[in-house]
Amino acid sequence: MVCTIHKKLEIDYLLAEEIGIKSDEISPYGTTKAKVSLSILDRLQNEKNGKYVVIVGITPTPLGEGKSTTLLGLAQALNIHKGVNAFATLRQPSQGPTFGIKGGAAGGGYAQVIPMEEFNLHLTGDFHALTAANNLVAAQLDARIFHEATQGDEVLFNRLVPTIKGTRKFTEIQLRRLRRLAINKTDPNQLTRDEKVRFARYLRKITVGQSATEKGLIRETSFKITVASELMAILALTKDIKDFKQRMGSMIVAFDKKGEPVTADDLGVTGALMVLLKDAIHPNLMQTLEGSPVLVHAGPFANIAHGCSSILADKVALKLVGEKGYVLTEGGFGSDIGMEKLLNIKCRTSGDIPDCVVLVTTIRALKMHGGGPPVPPGAPLKPEYLKENLDLVRNGLPNLIKHISNGNKFGLPVVVCINSFETDTEAELKLVQEEAVRNGAFGAAVSSHWADGGAGAVKLAEAVMSACDRPNQFKFLYDLDKPFDEKIQTISREMYGAKNVVYTSEVASKLKMYEEKGYGNLPICMAKTAGSLTGDPTIKGAPTGFDLKINDVSLSAGAGFVIPIVGEISTMPGLSTRPAIYDIDVNSDTGEIEGLF
Amino acid sequence: MVCTIHKKLEIDYLLAEEIGIKSDEISPYGTTKAKVSLSILDRLQNEKNGKYVVIVGITPTPLGEGKSTTLLGLAQALNIHKGVNAFATLRQPSQGPTFGIKGGAAGGGYAQVIPMEEFNLHLTGDFHALTAANNLVAAQLDARIFHEATQGDEVLFNRLVPTIKGTRKFTEIQLRRLRRLAINKTDPNQLTRDEKVRFARYLRKITVGQSATEKGLIRETSFKITVASELMAILALTKDIKDFKQRMGSMIVAFDKKGEPVTADDLGVTGALMVLLKDAIHPNLMQTLEGSPVLVHAGPFANIAHGCSSILADKVALKLVGEKGYVLTEGGFGSDIGMEKLLNIKCRTSGDIPDCVVLVTTIRALKMHGGGPPVPPGAPLKPEYLKENLDLVRNGLPNLIKHISNGNKFGLPVVVCINSFETDTEAELKLVQEEAVRNGAFGAAVSSHWADGGAGAVKLAEAVMSACDRPNQFKFLYDLDKPFDEKIQTISREMYGAKNVVYTSEVASKLKMYEEKGYGNLPICMAKTAGSLTGDPTIKGAPTGFDLKINDVSLSAGAGFVIPIVGEISTMPGLSTRPAIYDIDVNSDTGEIEGLF
Repeated sequence: MVCTIHKKLEIDYLLAEEIGIKSDEISPYGTTKAKVSLSILDRLQNEKNGKYVVIVGITPTPLGEGKSTTLLGLAQALNIHKGVNAFATLRQPSQGPTFGIKGGAAGGGYAQVIPMEEFNLHLTGDFHALTAANNLVAAQLDARIFHEATQGDEVLFNRLVPTIKGTRKFTEIQLRRLRRLAINKTDPNQLTRDEKVRFARYLRKITVGQSATEKGLIRETSFKITVASELMAILALTKDIKDFKQRMGSMIVAFDKKGEPVTADDLGVTGALMVLLKDAIHPNLMQTLEGSPVLVHAGPFANIAHGCSSILADKVALKLVGEKGYVLTEGGFGSDIGMEKLLNIKCRTSGDIPDCVVLVTTIRALKMHGGGPPVPPGAPLKPEYLKENLDLVRNGLPNLIKHISNGNKFGLPVVVCINSFETDTEAELKLVQEEAVRNGAFGAAVSSHWADGGAGAVKLAEAVMSACDRPNQFKFLYDLDKPFDEKIQTISREMYGAKNVVYTSEVASKLKMYEEKGYGNLPICMAKTAGSLTGDPTIKGAPTGFDLKINDVSLSAGAGFVIPIVGEISTMPGLSTRPAIYDIDVNSDTGEIEGLF
Repeated sequence: MVCTIHKKLEIDYLLAEEIGIKSDEISPYGTTKAKVSLSILDRLQNEKNGKYVVIVGITPTPLGEGKSTTLLGLAQALNIHKGVNAFATLRQPSQGPTFGIKGGAAGGGYAQVIPMEEFNLHLTGDFHALTAANNLVAAQLDARIFHEATQGDEVLFNRLVPTIKGTRKFTEIQLRRLRRLAINKTDPNQLTRDEKVRFARYLRKITVGQSATEKGLIRETSFKITVASELMAILALTKDIKDFKQRMGSMIVAFDKKGEPVTADDLGVTGALMVLLKDAIHPNLMQTLEGSPVLVHAGPFANIAHGCSSILADKVALKLVGEKGYVLTEGGFGSDIGMEKLLNIKCRTSGDIPDCVVLVTTIRALKMHGGGPPVPPGAPLKPEYLKENLDLVRNGLPNLIKHISNGNKFGLPVVVCINSFETDTEAELKLVQEEAVRNGAFGAAVSSHWADGGAGAVKLAEAVMSACDRPNQFKFLYDLDKPFDEKIQTISREMYGAKNVVYTSEVASKLKMYEEKGYGNLPICMAKTAGSLTGDPTIKGAPTGFDLKINDVSLSAGAGFVIPIVGEISTMPGLSTRPAIYDIDVNSDTGEIEGLF
């Protein structure tokens, strides 16, 4: 299952056929990327799934430890060197890093997705479609607030349910709202005055900062980048069109003064959102430098969302590789965040259970956890990181060991991948390998896929194949029917090493309110710093016995999770004084892109 | 040159070949749309252009009089019934109308672009790329204001020009700024303190509403939809990559307190914008219901911009049809706005001179100008419009005649197209045909392409072919080297029938300032209501002797025009109380789109 790179059409019908996709199941978007139809799931519904491998990391340095590079290198090793089917599934990246700091998210060296500028920029337009969909909700929310504020009850109702050519009827989406209000009528003319008001008015009562000026209503609100939107999380957790619409319609856009949720369905936008996102729901096919197939689909934040690529892409890939094949996917950040959410949220939603965890570490990160100096982006590495220092590595091992145990707590075998650098020494690598296996890892392999492509990840591939042969003993960390407090306590104690969870009174009452409104069975999506097992990014290693403080909590009723927030989370990052854009250009003569790495 | 509609791939290599596009010049985006490479212009540079036909309208009712439908019907008539090559070029529509009111911009009946949902929504993502590019400029503007306000002179300069691995140098875009400042140095270490400040600081001095809060700087600004952005106008007026970059870099994002323009180049974003728009610069190929090729590219507003599809699409089409072929394109709104700007701005920029004007009218619009009642969208038509009323038609003729004379003032033959409706009577149609020809039209044809497709527009096609055989006597309405006042007076008197132009003192001093800053040679892009030849949309017919009041003026230095504003122009339309979204959905079972017209 290696893609032939064709001269003119790198992603085309020939490639698609090689990896089991029929010509009517693929839509090329230009010559290097394509949409893959979800109809594959119907055609292959009776086939068995392949093995499912989750790539996660230890607590990373700010430079990242190479999870995506490992994902792609491992796919190449399995495809080319072990001769088995393998698909990588990956998040589509946000544009911020591409233009702000040098570096996208396409992997690196000889383990990357090509062409990286397509991967890092528009791809097939899914993110742009989500942006347009978010903007439509915002426009309709603002318009509705304005119309409710400026129109009398009868006028408002009459405009919402107009008489057209002598007849007057509710639309399907309006009938859904009536049913939610327990108004069992379908003829607009039969509604009482009170029912008309309940049907038509819900936004004027929103408790947001308002002040009247001659221009009208002023309303305080905020920006979010697309990847931080609930719609993005929904795309990633969706199982089919029906489920997608149901989740979008359930998004809460406001609470009225009685505390009742106002949903996207109440705004009448659900169907229009589905129309805007009808292409975005299909996964995108690209390939690695060595020709391994990659499905790129959705890119929710790993803090206020669960941080995984889409369920649909994994499902398509699991069918396409067949029973003896492998699908590799990634959880954002360390195992405490990315893996925990991937398993407890994504896998619980999809029903697809992993067979093995690959835990990516670097000697650099272990040295940092062992007491090495900070590793800020953009600055040269300190000498501790460039020459052998076994003490720092040894002192950093508790962080690795904690992440190994995190995987084992889900009943999964953990294969440690030491993503090696030129400056690592034999003794350092040997120490980590031995200690990993002595402390619960199923195996540990030194891997050089960045420098060597798939050939550098063969030992890792072999360890992963062995781990996947074990009988699956997967179990979830918590049950959904437990109270929110118990679910949050379990994650904090088992995954982070916390002793107590401390809530502000506002958080406690919001959690209670969510349970009362019927959202108590949702899983937890912790929003915590990636830089530490604790809530404080300056604390390295593997501390225990600390208090974890929850400052805020929010509800994504459409995506289907509750988000306890540890510390402050920004959903609108800025640019530095001299962002990478200063170096980026298209050569006017050759058309080549310059300065994009 | 009729596209075969292939079973699986409607736009594919076979189609492309039929219309003269080679397989390496086309990139399919899915199966019904494709990007067409600008390399066609190099390959065909020695070929002669086809005939160039401009479709415009009389002063329209709020329902529109069918310019796009006529454009597409005429292309079908030329292709299928007259057996000549013909291409339609068309603007990509904004999403607002699709979700707000029922109706996109894909034409209608048997004269429309298919599939209309692709045309009306994402197409190949050009608009989304422009949105992302606009957002990048806004993000960098905000970030820069923040950094200039919070960093000292030395720190700011050092961050803008950092020492990396021992060396420190300016980027290409920074060297351009130095040259604009007349600082003839290339070594950052050679700059004096004053030069460093001039190089690094320009945004803190912007005169926009600011107030300090504990959160930082507050800055008053506003939203614009993408089609109202200067970037959109630039895409439409661009001739090649070099020109595109030059125009984008020249966009003025602010004026500093000294009154000096701060450009996109000063923000360092030009190259990054070009990278974001590297695909958007290539036109998009679609087709009509009967298989005529359509290039869809760019969609600038017809008020604060010039309202035409792109120069590049027209250039590609003019080469592809060959010397004996026809390219049909459209000017937004009536001839006073759309045609005037198409000819004086777009054609002057491109150097492509039209051969003929098609002036679209309806009996309905003439009756309105003749004193008929208002024609609001969404309401049933009044009886005057549904039965014969020769008096109303006759009284409305002066508006038609004025638009005929507008075309003739450019030295162009004007063919009147009466876009017919079922309710029009023979006598009404005959009256208009006769009066049109008696008052300067080259010809006048009744056309039924909405109901009959290309077959309904054969007479129109024949009149257009005859008109194009005339020797070309085109001339511009004004010369660029005249003062702004004279150019504005000429347009207002010659095109609108105004007697005097009245400026506020602020407008007069801004025009003076633009001339002083070296922008005096730019053409004029009038922003005036489309609903009247005057500045007041309630005044119908063809009044003369009125005063035209210019309330504001702005400068689009990148697009390359000055915009005198008559009345108020909204660049951020809202949604109605019950927008069309209530009816729009994707059927969960069949995947079919519902409610989108």
